[in-house]
Amino acid sequence: MTIGVPRETYPGERRVALIPDGIPALTKKGFDVIIEAGAGMNAGLTDAAYEAKGAKIAPGREEVFKAADILFMVRTLGANLKTGGEDYPLLREGQMVIGMADPLSEPGEVAKVADRKALAFSLELIPRITRAQSMDVLSSMASIAGYRAVLEAAMLLPKLFPMMMTAAGTITPAKVFILGAGDAGLQAIATAKRLGAVVHAYDVRPAVKEQVESLGGKFVELELETTEAQDAGGYAKELGEEFYRKQR
Amino acid sequence: MTIGVPRETYPGERRVALIPDGIPALTKKGFDVIIEAGAGMNAGLTDAAYEAKGAKIAPGREEVFKAADILFMVRTLGANLKTGGEDYPLLREGQMVIGMADPLSEPGEVAKVADRKALAFSLELIPRITRAQSMDVLSSMASIAGYRAVLEAAMLLPKLFPMMMTAAGTITPAKVFILGAGDAGLQAIATAKRLGAVVHAYDVRPAVKEQVESLGGKFVELELETTEAQDAGGYAKELGEEFYRKQR
Repeated sequence: MTIGVPRETYPGERRVALIPDGIPALTKKGFDVIIEAGAGMNAGLTDAAYEAKGAKIAPGREEVFKAADILFMVRTLGANLKTGGEDYPLLREGQMVIGMADPLSEPGEVAKVADRKALAFSLELIPRITRAQSMDVLSSMASIAGYRAVLEAAMLLPKLFPMMMTAAGTITPAKVFILGAGDAGLQAIATAKRLGAVVHAYDVRPAVKEQVESLGGKFVELELETTEAQDAGGYAKELGEEFYRKQR
Repeated sequence: MTIGVPRETYPGERRVALIPDGIPALTKKGFDVIIEAGAGMNAGLTDAAYEAKGAKIAPGREEVFKAADILFMVRTLGANLKTGGEDYPLLREGQMVIGMADPLSEPGEVAKVADRKALAFSLELIPRITRAQSMDVLSSMASIAGYRAVLEAAMLLPKLFPMMMTAAGTITPAKVFILGAGDAGLQAIATAKRLGAVVHAYDVRPAVKEQVESLGGKFVELELETTEAQDAGGYAKELGEEFYRKQR
């Protein structure tokens, strides 16, 4: 079986679905790997690096789709509304597409894949249970988003994050408020705290209070009925409009 | 006596030489304070805030120069080669200009002030001794530069600064090398260290090794004769070309 990695076409997308170091594990299991020329370029990975690990480089997109039984992509289907449509005519019966697909927001895009009798696996819908941790594509991206968000804030804020004790006096640390303490929020708390800010955070789930505090943040509690905000799996649960109205 | 604060004219300059909170100390000593309208705008300080603290707002630059016996400026003379020249005709005999002036790099600009029979005080040339600490305009700026430099680096670096232990594996921390461990360098070391990087630093003065290490940085030592690199005041000293050649 052949795994194909086309170049990402979404404007500004710099990621790639497979890095050279990921190839040996696949070839050992009997897969062939074919990479579209330049697929890793924006992530700083050269075609030569892929070839060195045993991949074949295809000069064009069509060759990759023709050769591959399985396609690895970052943004596919509903996750690439801008340019993803150009790929549908290249899909063939029984071909598999594995990547982020946003099928719940864009069911119409999934239907187009079904029309081509191809199969799509939407990685971001894999439940984040312990067993599926090695397939988790969300936590890592959320962590980066949380980290980056704080850097952007630090660049824009007209004061420094840390407290400064100088000869001219003491400058108080920045106060940072993080809304939501999931993967992104926790990383944002950690990063802001690292930079020396005084960090407050809030989440509808009171159970994350401990996590927030373990990172040095202060948890803001609202006197509301929030006990129902976490489902059995530890995820934030959708709550009634009445609840949100109260929170606001 | 009247202190005047003109708007800074250097392109992109957002600082202002006097903040509203600095006014009461001056008025208590008998000074009048006159501010050019909009002088604090780019620093987020309104004319109203200056007025509330007892300053008079002048609609134009000429009024400020006419009324003031002493001018407070951030960039003056040689520190504002782009637009500072427009101020010279406004200077009058005996008037004092206090600010950053870069007279050593731009002696010609100082001569122009002398031609007007005005006086210039270059704040950045005040020796940074304990007694003059309250007049130190360099350390604070250097600290901000060091802090900001690391933020810029963190934004540009295609990896995260801190070590990350995730379900998918451990990401090693970024390695940061800081060249020079003065005020800017030390703040850069502290900021990079806060963000979780592994920090190495180098300075021609081996005496700063301890300061680097106290911030969690590793001091890089070159096997060179660097004992002569620090003068009696603790500042970096200029060394011979032979020394620099060896270092490179």
